[in-house]
Order: sequence, then C-alpha cells, then structure tokens
Amino acid sequence: MTVNPYARDLDKNPANHQPLTPISILERTALAYPDRVAVIHGEARLSYREFWSRSRRLASALTERGIGKGDTVSVMLSNTPAMLEAHFGVPMTKAVLHSLNTRLDAAVIAFQLDHAETKIVIVDREFADVMREALGRASVKPLVIDYDDPHYPADAPYPKGGRIGSLDYEDFLAAGDPDFTWPMPDDEWDAISLNYTSGTTGNPKGVVYHHRGAALMVYANTIHAGMGKHPVYLWTLPMFHCNGWCFPWTVPAQAGTQVCLRWVRPRAMYDAIAEHGVTHLCGAPIVMATLINASDADKRDFPQTVTFNTAAAPPPEAVLAGMAEAGFQVNHLYGLTETYGPATVNEWHGEWDALEPRTRTAKKARQGVPYLALEGLTVMDPDTMEPVPTDGTTIGEVMFRGNIVMKGYLKNPSATAEAFRGGWFHSGDLGVMHPDGYIQLKDRSKDIIISGGENISSIEVEDALYKHPAVGACGVVARHDDKWGEVPIAFVELKPGREAGEAELLDHCRTLLARFKVPKTVLFHEIPKTSTGKIQKFKLREMAKQG
Amino acid sequence: MTVNPYARDLDKNPANHQPLTPISILERTALAYPDRVAVIHGEARLSYREFWSRSRRLASALTERGIGKGDTVSVMLSNTPAMLEAHFGVPMTKAVLHSLNTRLDAAVIAFQLDHAETKIVIVDREFADVMREALGRASVKPLVIDYDDPHYPADAPYPKGGRIGSLDYEDFLAAGDPDFTWPMPDDEWDAISLNYTSGTTGNPKGVVYHHRGAALMVYANTIHAGMGKHPVYLWTLPMFHCNGWCFPWTVPAQAGTQVCLRWVRPRAMYDAIAEHGVTHLCGAPIVMATLINASDADKRDFPQTVTFNTAAAPPPEAVLAGMAEAGFQVNHLYGLTETYGPATVNEWHGEWDALEPRTRTAKKARQGVPYLALEGLTVMDPDTMEPVPTDGTTIGEVMFRGNIVMKGYLKNPSATAEAFRGGWFHSGDLGVMHPDGYIQLKDRSKDIIISGGENISSIEVEDALYKHPAVGACGVVARHDDKWGEVPIAFVELKPGREAGEAELLDHCRTLLARFKVPKTVLFHEIPKTSTGKIQKFKLREMAKQG
Repeated sequence: MTVNPYARDLDKNPANHQPLTPISILERTALAYPDRVAVIHGEARLSYREFWSRSRRLASALTERGIGKGDTVSVMLSNTPAMLEAHFGVPMTKAVLHSLNTRLDAAVIAFQLDHAETKIVIVDREFADVMREALGRASVKPLVIDYDDPHYPADAPYPKGGRIGSLDYEDFLAAGDPDFTWPMPDDEWDAISLNYTSGTTGNPKGVVYHHRGAALMVYANTIHAGMGKHPVYLWTLPMFHCNGWCFPWTVPAQAGTQVCLRWVRPRAMYDAIAEHGVTHLCGAPIVMATLINASDADKRDFPQTVTFNTAAAPPPEAVLAGMAEAGFQVNHLYGLTETYGPATVNEWHGEWDALEPRTRTAKKARQGVPYLALEGLTVMDPDTMEPVPTDGTTIGEVMFRGNIVMKGYLKNPSATAEAFRGGWFHSGDLGVMHPDGYIQLKDRSKDIIISGGENISSIEVEDALYKHPAVGACGVVARHDDKWGEVPIAFVELKPGREAGEAELLDHCRTLLARFKVPKTVLFHEIPKTSTGKIQKFKLREMAKQG
Repeated sequence: MTVNPYARDLDKNPANHQPLTPISILERTALAYPDRVAVIHGEARLSYREFWSRSRRLASALTERGIGKGDTVSVMLSNTPAMLEAHFGVPMTKAVLHSLNTRLDAAVIAFQLDHAETKIVIVDREFADVMREALGRASVKPLVIDYDDPHYPADAPYPKGGRIGSLDYEDFLAAGDPDFTWPMPDDEWDAISLNYTSGTTGNPKGVVYHHRGAALMVYANTIHAGMGKHPVYLWTLPMFHCNGWCFPWTVPAQAGTQVCLRWVRPRAMYDAIAEHGVTHLCGAPIVMATLINASDADKRDFPQTVTFNTAAAPPPEAVLAGMAEAGFQVNHLYGLTETYGPATVNEWHGEWDALEPRTRTAKKARQGVPYLALEGLTVMDPDTMEPVPTDGTTIGEVMFRGNIVMKGYLKNPSATAEAFRGGWFHSGDLGVMHPDGYIQLKDRSKDIIISGGENISSIEVEDALYKHPAVGACGVVARHDDKWGEVPIAFVELKPGREAGEAELLDHCRTLLARFKVPKTVLFHEIPKTSTGKIQKFKLREMAKQG
C-alpha cells in the first residue's frame, strides 16, 4: 500500500493557519494608510487611525462589561459611524453583532432581543421611543447605551427621541482602551453577526454569519463591485440589511472611504456624490428611482462614473436608461439574508451593450451566475433534487451551496435542517436556468413582498387582517409600484352579515404592523380557492395587476 | 453557567461549507464567459470553454492512469498552454503539481523526482536532453509524456530535443474526457503543488502549498495587481517559480487572458503588449531592464498603462524612471517560495508621487506591508522572538504568519519545525521595521544570491569549488550587476603549493552546477576569517563591491 507523503508532518500551526476574519483586514489598512479618511459623516471625518482606535475602544469597553464569546450585542442604528464601529468592535470581543431593522415595531424588536439573549443594546436616539416600548415588553434586561449623533441633520424629518439608556455612546467609548489587544477568533467558523429575516410564517428567524464568510465576502465584493484603490462608498443601503451586504467590512480592503447617510434623500445623495467623489453605492430599485426622479434643484453634476449595485428586483428598462443618462453604471446582484446579501451577479458581456434596449434589459434582468465566493448555484426540483433542464423555461427552486451561506438559524434546528435539506440551501425563490448558465427568478414560492427593499411577509399581514372580527377570508399579494418596487395589496372577503370599510381595516392593521407592512389598498372581493380550500394567490396577483 | 447559543446546531454541512480551491474559480469563469479568450500562444487561441475542457481532459487522462490523492505529477515546461493546463488538470485529480525549474541540471532534477516520488512527468521537448539524463539517474520510473509545442518559435535560440517519453501530450489529452466530473478536494488543507527551493545547505527542500492558500492568493493577487474585468496577463515570470506567484490560478477570476511566452525576449514582449493589449506582467528587475534597454527596432508603442509587478530586488531609481517613461507602472512585492510568491506589497501613497526622485525611490525600495491574505508580518530577534524597535535601523529577521505560508517541507519534519519555530515562519531574510510599519530588507541571513530572478545558494557553489583539489578556502558572494541584479563572485585561496587558474576552476564548476550558478569571476585572494575560523562574508562583499 502506498503511503501519502503529503499527509505526514505538514500540519496546521499558528505560522501557516489563521482564522479568516474581516477584522484583520481593517487592522492592515490602519497600518498601511493611517491618515486616509475612513469615514465621512456630515462635517466629521475619521481617519483609519481614528476609526481603528475607536473600534478598539468599543471592543475594550464591551470586554470590560463582560461581553465575550457567545454573547449578543444588539444595535438599532442608522447608517452612522457608530454602526460602522459596531461591525468591527463587537466581533473583536468574540461576541456577535445583532443589527435591528430600524423600521420594526416594538413587538418584533422585543422578540428579537429575547431570542438573541441580548446583553447590551446600542440605540440611536431617533429610535428611542420604539426601543423604550420594546424593552418594556422584552424579558431580557440588557444594558442600554444611547447613541446621540452629534451630526443629526438640522432639517431632520424625525426629531430625536429622549435618552433611554444608562450610558452615552461617546462616554462608553472614552472609557475604552484605544490600544486594546483584540483576540483573533478561535475559529473562522465562529459567529460574527446575527440578522433576523421576517420569514413567512411564525416568528422571525435569526440568520447567523461567521468570520470566514464575512472575510470571503470582502474579497468577492471588492472584485465584483470593481473597487480599485481608495473607493468612495455612499451608504444608501441600510447596514442592518445583511450587514449592508458586508460592505462595512469590504470598503477597508482597498482603503476606501465610507460616507454615512442617515436618510436616503435625493439632495443629500447628489451632494455626497459631487462633493466626496462617490464611486460606489448599493440599494434596491427605489434608491435608483429616487436618484432619477430627483428635482433639478436636488441634482448635481459629477465627473466620475458611479457604480450602483442593485438587488431585490430586476432593474426596469426605464430605470436602466435613466441611470445611464445620470452617470451611473448598474450592476445587478441577487441574494438573501441567508447568503450574506449578494450571492449571484449578472456578469455582463461587453457585446451586450450593442443590443437594442429591450433585449439588453432582458439580459440585465437575469440574476446571473455565482458570486466568486459561492461554490454552487443551481435550480432544482426540490422534491427530486434534480436540476431542471437548462432551457430558460422550466421552473425550479434556486439553491445555493458554499462558504457565503449562513451557519444556520439560531436556536432553530428544524428550520435549519429544512433549509439545508439535501446539502443545498433552499432559497424559496423560484427560477429558471438559461442555456448559458445564467439563472433568472420567476416567482417566489414564499409569500414575500419586497417593498422599498424591505421584505414583507404576506402571511404576517394576512394574520393581522384575520384578527379583525369582520374578516372572513383574505389574501395579500404584491402589486408593482413605480416607487417602491412592490406594495402589499389586500383582498378581503367579509364574514356574512359583518361590515367593515377600507379605512377601518387599515387602522386595524396599523395597530398590529409596522407602517411599511400595512396594505396600500384593501379590495373587497370573493377570494378564489382551490377545491381543497387553498387560496389561489396567482389569481389574486392577476387581479391586482389589472387593478 | 451561560450556554453559548451560537455553539449549538450550527454545524458545517455541504450547503454552507466547501473547500476553498482555485479550480472552482476557473469553472465559474468557464460558465460565465465560455467564449472569451483564456490563453494566447503564438497564433493559437484557447477560449475559456476550450481551456476548461482541456484541463478536464488532462485530469481525466491522469485519473485513468491511476493518478490520485497523494501522487505527484512533475512537469518541466516553459510558459506554455500545457503548463497552464497542468495548474488545473493535475489538482483536479487530487494529485500534486510539481513544477521543475527548467534551468536545473540533471542531478538536481533526479533528486527532486525521487524525493517527490513522481508518478508521471510531462516534459517540453526543449528540455528533453537534460530530462533524459535525469531519468537515467533517478530511482523512480515515472510515465514520461512529451510536450511537443506546435508553436515552438521558428527563430528558436535552442532547438527542440528528441522524444524521450512513451506518449505525446496531445494524444494523452485526446484520450481524456472533456466533461470529466472532477471531485472537490476533500479538504482545503490538501496539497495542491510542490516547489523545491534551492536552500543554502544540503538538498533542495520541497515546499508544499494547499488549495486554501492558492485560492486566497487568487483574491489577493487580483486586488493588489489592480486587475479589473478582463486583464491581459503576459507570462514573463516563469510559472515554475512559486507557481508563477499563483497568477495561473488568478487571471481566470476576472476572466482575463494569459499570453504565453517561451523566452523573455524584448521584441516578443513588446509585440504582445502592443498587439494583445497586455495590462499586467510580473518579473524580476532583469525583465524590466530588458524592456528598458530594448533596441528601438524591438520597441513598440502602446496606448495602455501596463502594471509591472516586481520582486526579488528593490527596483533601482534609473529603472523606475525608465519604466515610467516606457509606459509601465511598477508595483514592488516581496515574498519567498514558502509564501506562495508575493506576501508583502509596497502599498503606495499618492502623495509620494510628489517627492523628489531619490526619496521616491527610497519609498519604493521598501518591501512594505502584508499582502491582504497574510495575517502577520513582523521583524523579530530570532533568539528572543521579540519584535525589533520600529526605528528603521534595528535589524532583525523578517517573519510571516498566515494562510499563504506553506504547509511545510515535504518529508522534512526537522526543517519544517525549524522554519516554524515559535509560531512564525522564519524567512531567513534580515530587515528593519520603519516607524510607519513598512518593512525593508537589509541583508539575507541565508547566503542566497538572486541572479536574474533565480536563487543561487552560495554554499552550493562553494561546495562545488571545494571539490577542486587546488582549492583551500573559498567564499562566494553576490555582486551587483546591472543586467542580472546580482551575480555570484568567487574568492579563492589556493592550497599551499597547488596551482589553478580562473578558467580551470570555472570549467570545474560547469561540470557540477547549472550554468546560471557558475561564478562570473574567480578572484584569488586570502579569505578573511573570524577567530573561530568562520569566513567573514561581509568583508568579501565589500571587496566584491570595490571590484
């Protein structure tokens, strides 16, 4: 028998094996480019030296409070320097960063804090009121730290709330050691962050990312976004979405500048692009619509071509044309919370530029091929686990496999097992495989409505409607909307002999749901059902389309 | 006691964990861009579809011959398509690619074949004669495959040798399956390649790379070389050096084109740059000198800026000026065979462009900061393992730590343990740490002379000289050479009463050493020694400098 000489005396040791983590990438840039601007926020600038030392202060202060491996630090923050610092400072303690969607209501926030067993929560004063209510409902009693943004815009559409915590963020940082010696993660498989997905039924599921996946996303994002040396990245995508598709960790790789932005408003975006030389930004189609539809007074000229990475819905023809005219190059990505954000990319072929607009848009609408850090992408029949024919028409479920797929759902082994059935992550999205190997989404098997980049579970909205005593049957579906991409539309069949108007039902929903989840319209109509009583959503969608 | 919720039910499975490997990166590009040109060689073009299917044919044919995990496939190939195919086809069988330096002599080749337990060797007909001799000396009896390059230049300075194998490469490939289903590596820690380093004493050491490191080098090279979409890479660096610094695996990540080149000759380089739009190349300073010193007849105009990645020696002021004038941008890297090629990069600061030439060159001469995929870089006192002060003057040993450090030396546990002593890879290179965290080499503690990018062990040359009966003492040191960077110079003290001239000693060396290792000059002189009899190399270096 042959002995394999490569299997002897060639073991791992600290010299040749270290955990992959985005933290060491920031450390490296702080070494090479300490004086470059890492963060811009209003009039404030943080150099890489300052950004790195503030992140270490945060890690040190958290460690002093006993935060360490297995602990959750929750944040309810806008796209501010504190949110960027949390992306490094929290995992530097070996703890897990849990980012709360700032649009959630108190009940969902309370659920997440309890489920995550939150030890510390950092909350922006913009969200003080809803967090106060959530903390009142939650069983956990975390230490609460107020983030009082000194650059809160003077023309804020929402006023700052009060102080609800026992500590101020800047005071907390000031007590930390700027030279804190952070420990490497014990293992690159260790959790780095937690992001809840709304899911379609029951409670939100906590998606767990690891250091390995985050570090690989740094590489893949840098390459796919075409980030050369010193990119300038504008924060229009909320960082609480899949950790901002991992871009808080990505931009330092090329010693870039991250421009914070509290609210996605056209004037502020154009000002940043013109004044800071923004080269990259990300967002749902609604952000593109906001840019294109800005008034002339809000628009600014800029010399550079700006790369806009979009996901959540294929960019429509008019939007692509408008973006090109406005000086943006659109990159179409697709992914889920479970895949660290983008996991496919519409790899563009130069010769497609010469196609006529409609055909070109059809090419651009496809979700494409695997991200560099994703090892497998397929469309399969979920029952047989056989790939569908590569004919562009046979529908199957889009499935992912690789190092940028989550560890699993926190404290939810059955959902985790179901999601990973057969050794592939089941996205729940339906799509086709084109003959050239590009995938395209066709429909969603889960009842998710994506409105302004936010996922809305139609089932959660239906559950709310059913709680009204007059509702006999209902179905909530998406309707295309030029501004929001999609909006939820409710079809309602009243119980015999009961009465309720649209306004009453919408008011009812507002007591149970976050604002953005409340249906745009209620249509009173008989609900089409199958012989077994299952609501025929596709018929409702057709009716919604026809208005 | 608190239970860590992140340590439960979040295990690895095929959906969320796959081995990192450069092979899946090529597979991805072959899917996304099958019709793009992957390889140019003379008049020949290989699309990504063809390159991928030829690599699979090679893997299939090797598998048919029983090649698999733990086996070594050796290649003695120039920068040709066969060499690129070997970089994918061999590891696709789980076997290890061993690249022979084509400048070695038969004795060293035979040693390597035996040590690596080579099962199959693929040899370019240019090297038939030396390989025939090596196979005669070796104990192993590998299957020998001749590569008969159909694009062997008509104006070749070296004629093709005969056929020495039992098979022709193209016939071997033709028998393979173009749709071969390759297995993923069992583990990303599995060996992918083997590269022997000349070392300073005793036999060459076999440096083992793994799939994980090679994949991370793909990302880091792409980013540091500034490779945007579709780079055009010219092969002036030999691919047998650290697997061409991992660029055979790197270029496909951005769907680039690799331009093969058998010999580094000025006309061929300029033709490739002008005709194929080359954007990137790598090489030792001698390649830059060849470009700058080319005759006007050989030079060609080209519109693009070409990035030249150099290592092995800091680029001199005149070379930097000449390169800039000729349209090249020089990127200074540093590393060793043990670090997959480049592991540091002189990260450039834009404001340094404004410095006066001498100061600017001094900045450029520094080896710099860690490569993105390297986790640790330091200069330490090897005895105490304490970092030297960051003062730019205290000399210590440069040490590396991270995922682009080798697994170890094949079948050499004592050398491996010595190299990794204290949890850091000891480079053997002496250097300083500047106050800004950039390292700079000052001298080499190992007696290595780098001539035309090739490492020459001064001790090996001294050993050869000592075999001449007239040599009483000798010392071989490097002398600066405008063309080769360094050349070996021998100082010889004859035994009392014995006589030998320079020509006789050089002839003697030629019988024992590869041509490039033979000293340029022999100087007869008393050899300065310490009180304990150790030769004072630094004095010899001073004498060499003064001529």
